[in-house]
Amino acid sequence: MTYAAINLQSKFDLFSDHWAPRIIAQMNDDHFKLVKIQGEFVWHCHAETDEVFIVLDGSMDIHFRDGKVTLAQGEMFVVPKGIEHRPVAASECRVMLVEPAGTINTGDAGGELTANNGIWI
Amino acid sequence: MTYAAINLQSKFDLFSDHWAPRIIAQMNDDHFKLVKIQGEFVWHCHAETDEVFIVLDGSMDIHFRDGKVTLAQGEMFVVPKGIEHRPVAASECRVMLVEPAGTINTGDAGGELTANNGIWI
Repeated sequence: MTYAAINLQSKFDLFSDHWAPRIIAQMNDDHFKLVKIQGEFVWHCHAETDEVFIVLDGSMDIHFRDGKVTLAQGEMFVVPKGIEHRPVAASECRVMLVEPAGTINTGDAGGELTANNGIWI
Repeated sequence: MTYAAINLQSKFDLFSDHWAPRIIAQMNDDHFKLVKIQGEFVWHCHAETDEVFIVLDGSMDIHFRDGKVTLAQGEMFVVPKGIEHRPVAASECRVMLVEPAGTINTGDAGGELTANNGIWI
């Protein structure tokens, strides 16, 4: 049987658009996604789930209504379910997201930045 | 409100033993763990869950009964539930594990390498 590693850099090379997560792996009912972000995202929350951000390259902020956290490469944060947040990156930042399959990137906010949440690469 | 990033390198600096995962984050019912591995682990499987390995530094193999996969830094693999596997690292390798809270490192095998599965750092 042939078993293949999932190489994160190779996966990032497959796309260049921002705010459009790609699924690279599934564990039980959770998806592992890669996303490139730049600029300001919309304020939103996920009523039903926590959401994990792991910064693989660059840096980003996650704004909350009462503060923010800055994530550098090699840092992660778990946004608790139901908490309004807004990801922001001054320059392109590469992030791994972990969240249940089917989670919508814009959560309750919707709008034009809502991505297809089922694209595997 | 103060929000703190989880810095992976700083967490790794807190322990030095091998095959003893530490919990650094929780998303819903899943734990994110860091572990340092070196040498050969025991053959085992997890009947109830998939298990994610993400190599953060070094390299490792995961042996299966019918093959193996080599993971370098920046590579990941999802071991499907119920599949016998044995992690091996010729020299120290730093890994992030993602799996449901309560998952035992030695799965069905037990034995002296069974770690406390509830240590947060």
